Amino acid sequence: MTTVRIYVTYKQSVFDPQGEAITNSIHSLGHDEVQSVKVGKFFDVVIDPSKKAVEESVKEISEELLVNFNMETYTYKVLEEK
Amino acid sequence: MTTVRIYVTYKQSVFDPQGEAITNSIHSLGHDEVQSVKVGKFFDVVIDPSKKAVEESVKEISEELLVNFNMETYTYKVLEEK
Repeated sequence: MTTVRIYVTYKQSVFDPQGEAITNSIHSLGHDEVQSVKVGKFFDVVIDPSKKAVEESVKEISEELLVNFNMETYTYKVLEEK
Repeated sequence: MTTVRIYVTYKQSVFDPQGEAITNSIHSLGHDEVQSVKVGKFFDVVIDPSKKAVEESVKEISEELLVNFNMETYTYKVLEEK
C-alpha cells in the first residue's frame, strides 16, 4: 500500500479570505512576528499500487473530485510505501 | 523571513467524517484502488525570526488559535528561510 499526501492550495492569483482572517486574529493576539498566513488542505490517500499506478490514481481523483481547478491547484508527495 | 507549514490533523482516536465521505465518493467514481482517505488542513505561516524564535511562535499560535487540542494535533516543518 502506498500513502500519498495531496496538498490543495488556492492559486497565487486567488484571494485567501480565511488566511487573511487568521492573520488578523493572530495579530490581535499580539503576534507581530507573523507576517502572513495562507490556508490549505491535504488528503492522505492510501492506494493499492497493484490495482492502479499511484501517479495515475492521484491525477484522476484530484481532477474528478478533490480539486476545484478554477481556484485551486495541487501537488502531492509519497509519504509511505509498504 | 521563515516560512513554516503547520499541519493540523484529527487525533488517531477521532472519527474523520469528511475523510469517510470522500472515500465513499471516490469509490462510487470507480476507484477501488483507493483504500482510505484522511483529511487535514495546513497553514503556511511567514514569521520574522528576529522578533520571536520560530519554534516558540509556532507553539503559541497553534495553542492559542489554530489547533483544537480536544480533537486535533499538529506538526510543522520549515519550508523556507531567507
